[in-house]
Amino acid sequence: MLAASALENLIEALKRLPGVGQKSAQRMAYHLLQHDREGARQMAKALSTATESIGHCQRCHTFSETELCLICSDGARDARLLCVVETPADQAALERTGSYRGYYFVLLGRLSPLDGIGAREIGAEELLARAAQTEVEEVILASSFTAEGEATAHVLAEALRSRGIKATRLARGVPVGSELEYVDLGTIAHALSDRR
Amino acid sequence: MLAASALENLIEALKRLPGVGQKSAQRMAYHLLQHDREGARQMAKALSTATESIGHCQRCHTFSETELCLICSDGARDARLLCVVETPADQAALERTGSYRGYYFVLLGRLSPLDGIGAREIGAEELLARAAQTEVEEVILASSFTAEGEATAHVLAEALRSRGIKATRLARGVPVGSELEYVDLGTIAHALSDRR
Ligand SMILES: [Zn+2]
Ligand SMILES: [Zn+2]
Repeated sequence: MLAASALENLIEALKRLPGVGQKSAQRMAYHLLQHDREGARQMAKALSTATESIGHCQRCHTFSETELCLICSDGARDARLLCVVETPADQAALERTGSYRGYYFVLLGRLSPLDGIGAREIGAEELLARAAQTEVEEVILASSFTAEGEATAHVLAEALRSRGIKATRLARGVPVGSELEYVDLGTIAHALSDRR
Repeated sequence: MLAASALENLIEALKRLPGVGQKSAQRMAYHLLQHDREGARQMAKALSTATESIGHCQRCHTFSETELCLICSDGARDARLLCVVETPADQAALERTGSYRGYYFVLLGRLSPLDGIGAREIGAEELLARAAQTEVEEVILASSFTAEGEATAHVLAEALRSRGIKATRLARGVPVGSELEYVDLGTIAHALSDRR
């Protein structure tokens, strides 16, 4: 084959991107090598930097380059509200609506006992400790409206309520079966104001 | 925003991949950071290695990590045939058919005067010199069947023939496995006039 190892390695590596199969990976590799080597170098650098410097916020668990993320470091937000999401991408979607001013807790997953993802893996203990802080008045459970997301919300709501903490769920304006990251912002905003 | 710079840089870099917009780039970045950091590191390495080590074959201009590519270095191929393609990807497609055993010349583009891509940019001089070598008996013009690809084939055919070199073109016709009903009319018309 042509330029065997380096080209083949590049195609294999690109196939690890979600939604990218053999054909797309080939097209990407050829494009970068023929038309955008500067882009390829830039991408290599961005990937290295990201894997090296992006860790997790010690407080809310979202991606962060610092011990506390920008949101957790922002004293001007509403400390009475704590919003629980599955992923940093879901958190970013909520932020883009511009209609939430509280803090977050990112589960980095959802309960899925069959896959070995239990309460510990989603940081339930830390969430309960965080929610027990006196300034927190309400925990908004914004996990996905999928079977696993609903189960996650249910389990967390039970645990929170048994500790006397108010737990709400995003309103069902969010289409059932969809993941928050892909929902249009207006729908998310409505679901936020209609939370129950 | 979350983990501002490194994450945003990664998303911007991923957007340089063909067919990847803001949403896909975000999804890719979050996926790599949350689920496949090893994949991200591997991709960074593959991109660096590829941009550093993959150049062009001095003889046929395809991608190569060595001065002469594997095909040009292969003395067992049929030196009477020289196939002209637009890109290394086109060459790879032809190789995968397993039905061509000659050598190649890769234009790395096609004539597009409005974009400043003329005979020099596609290496027409080198191609003519290569085709003039005594062992070459036929140059197969396998540029795309687009307006620019056709124009490229036409110009090169004229130049080759004026030097007494036989130039042929890939046959136009109905793709194997397709039903006539779904083939575009121009293709059917060509298949009809080129019938053999
Ligand atoms: Zn945080
Ligand atoms: Zn070569």
